[in-house]
Amino acid sequence: RVNGDRLWDMLMEMAKIGPGIAGGNNRQTLTDADAEGRNLFKTWCETEGMAIGVDQMGTMFATRAGTDPDALPVYIGSHLDTQPTGGKYDGVLGVLAGLEVVRSLNDLGIRTKHPITITNWTNEEGARFAPAMLASGVFAGVHTIDYAYSRKDPDGKTFGDELKRIGWVGEEEVGARKMHAYFEYHIEQGPILEAEDKQIGVVTHCQGLWWLEFTLTGREAHTGSTPMNMRINAGLAMSRILEMVQDVAMAEQPGAVGGVGQMVFSPNSRNVLPGKVVFTVDIRTPSQDKLDRMRTRIEARAAEICEKLGVGCSVEAVGHFDPVTFDPVLVGRVREAAERLGYSHMNVISGAGHDACWAAKVAPSTMIMCPCVGGLSHNEAEEISKDWAAAGADVLFHAVLETAEI
Amino acid sequence: RVNGDRLWDMLMEMAKIGPGIAGGNNRQTLTDADAEGRNLFKTWCETEGMAIGVDQMGTMFATRAGTDPDALPVYIGSHLDTQPTGGKYDGVLGVLAGLEVVRSLNDLGIRTKHPITITNWTNEEGARFAPAMLASGVFAGVHTIDYAYSRKDPDGKTFGDELKRIGWVGEEEVGARKMHAYFEYHIEQGPILEAEDKQIGVVTHCQGLWWLEFTLTGREAHTGSTPMNMRINAGLAMSRILEMVQDVAMAEQPGAVGGVGQMVFSPNSRNVLPGKVVFTVDIRTPSQDKLDRMRTRIEARAAEICEKLGVGCSVEAVGHFDPVTFDPVLVGRVREAAERLGYSHMNVISGAGHDACWAAKVAPSTMIMCPCVGGLSHNEAEEISKDWAAAGADVLFHAVLETAEI
Ligand SMILES: NC(=O)NCCC(=O)O
Ligand SMILES: NC(=O)NCCC(=O)O
Repeated sequence: RVNGDRLWDMLMEMAKIGPGIAGGNNRQTLTDADAEGRNLFKTWCETEGMAIGVDQMGTMFATRAGTDPDALPVYIGSHLDTQPTGGKYDGVLGVLAGLEVVRSLNDLGIRTKHPITITNWTNEEGARFAPAMLASGVFAGVHTIDYAYSRKDPDGKTFGDELKRIGWVGEEEVGARKMHAYFEYHIEQGPILEAEDKQIGVVTHCQGLWWLEFTLTGREAHTGSTPMNMRINAGLAMSRILEMVQDVAMAEQPGAVGGVGQMVFSPNSRNVLPGKVVFTVDIRTPSQDKLDRMRTRIEARAAEICEKLGVGCSVEAVGHFDPVTFDPVLVGRVREAAERLGYSHMNVISGAGHDACWAAKVAPSTMIMCPCVGGLSHNEAEEISKDWAAAGADVLFHAVLETAEI
Repeated sequence: RVNGDRLWDMLMEMAKIGPGIAGGNNRQTLTDADAEGRNLFKTWCETEGMAIGVDQMGTMFATRAGTDPDALPVYIGSHLDTQPTGGKYDGVLGVLAGLEVVRSLNDLGIRTKHPITITNWTNEEGARFAPAMLASGVFAGVHTIDYAYSRKDPDGKTFGDELKRIGWVGEEEVGARKMHAYFEYHIEQGPILEAEDKQIGVVTHCQGLWWLEFTLTGREAHTGSTPMNMRINAGLAMSRILEMVQDVAMAEQPGAVGGVGQMVFSPNSRNVLPGKVVFTVDIRTPSQDKLDRMRTRIEARAAEICEKLGVGCSVEAVGHFDPVTFDPVLVGRVREAAERLGYSHMNVISGAGHDACWAAKVAPSTMIMCPCVGGLSHNEAEEISKDWAAAGADVLFHAVLETAEI
């Protein structure tokens, strides 16, 4: 078993970097706090005798050597970046549990045939730069590096410039590494494990996603002196689209979600009808059919809504992945490890996107989940217990060890 | 008649300060551009031999002396501040037409019994600091100066600090001046005069307003892994409130408007259901009954909408004025001046709020309006013709002269 206290101490130490305003973290990607977090992680890895590689997306790879020079590494990855009002565990747990696995191996003096590489993927959250899982997407060949470098944050700063600014542009070509297998351990970010009183989620699938960025064009005009029938009201069109997205998601229950997290009015003045309203619709479901149907419906109905109001409507897909099925062999190893260790477990489908979803395109991949209190994540109040954290790390330890071979 | 070319040249000169991005202006109150505009206006007034006074709200008063030392001044006022994406005429026309009246009097060597005071009220727009017409509101005793100084812009800067920063805190006690009469000349900001092909709007009333700032509290949660039935979705509640505001306004047609110009999601991340949504509902109508009814309905229905969704809802009134009836004697003088000068005219109700609405609380007041193209205002594309501008200035000239007495 791993050392749960040591893992917890690392989590608490990392959480001191980029503190939030309500007990969580604001360590958004490519900020100074992100750089500080990277440095702490690097120091910890070096103390364990690991070799650090960094690729041109700033993704960090810390490797514990194997005994067979020809064997590809087993990867354990997740991310150290957070939402603007994020929790202390989302992503961080997966990276630091990887390090705890290595520390435990070092304690026990166990050598593995395959090297073990812990990965901290850049910009998993997608909060500052859409889309999410950007670096793993480039790694898997889904995006070009030029696309990634040109992504802009709300202040207009590009990913490429900010990566350079914090000093983490690496030498390695992105995606050049080959993987024997990829494991990711993550908090569930949903309510099921806690509700079912299970310690371990054996992740068999991940639901697919579309991020549809709507730009509605109305006519900027005075809120007081513009009669109702002369308005080209982009705000009203937006409100109808939000209600419609809710309807479309509800029509696909169970097993589908839809909502809006980001919204910008321009010029955003109390007495000006907005000339422009930009917002991103987030829809997800494990079913490819539903995903396609929801997108088609939402775009068609939004076009109708806008046409009736004379509002201009354009849609850009700023994030997308299809539903993922994880590698059955690795999934089986996770389930067996949980069983062997005596942890209660159940199959789950990941509601959130993860770097594992892109890794699955280039290597046998799977995930392990632990519960989180109230299913709450992307909230500073996100919480897990030390025991939950340790149980998943134990399962990770065993499944990785079996895959990396002694 | 006034010199229409000279008036137009002043308008174009002022429009060079705080240029917008699409041909209009961004000269928001208490910015460096506002200070620059004030200085230009001050220089122009001093060239005409006027004495400048500034009150503790930063409102500027430029006075042309009268012949009777005991006679109260006739005021001509409006504002030089603009919306973030504002036009070149909204407010500016009224201030500079006042200056053109004085220039014409100087040209003609006419002395008046009553002094004439041109006023540039601070923060008419309310775009940066709610409420609108802030300085005239303090002048009229509607707000305290402490309230005004404590108002915050979206960056959290206070009105008081920003007024000090730009160096325009005056010595005069706010509201100490007494007025013989108050005139305000303004573009209509609505479509009626142009549609009816009239040169002059004789403004008999101004509709009343409520600005209701809603703060909806949802639960920040992951957009992907949070099932639909576990969401406390403040964005959805907002969308229902916007549709309801539209319904409430439509139920009071004709003669009522309702809409939303300002909207802020927090944390405003694509994959986080908003924990907080703040927006301001703007409702207006010339009928006191309707105004009261609309507010009551909107607050009651919003509370119902939010309760159903489990969303917290609080409402703060950040702007308010009751419908105004302007002084019948002054209104009559405006109508007679238009008639005498051969300008086509009609009675209109102001759809927008104006400093004249507060001035009306402390002095006989009225307004004059000229058409604007397409009724468009609070838009950089706001446009008027030189002839329209001059016609209203002529009417202002005659009505003021009659009131100030030769
Ligand atoms: N795990 C996680 O929150 N990833 C961010 C990408 C997403 O929105 O699913
Ligand atoms: N005239 C004008 O646009 N004033 C701003 C206050 C309002 O919203 O009516």
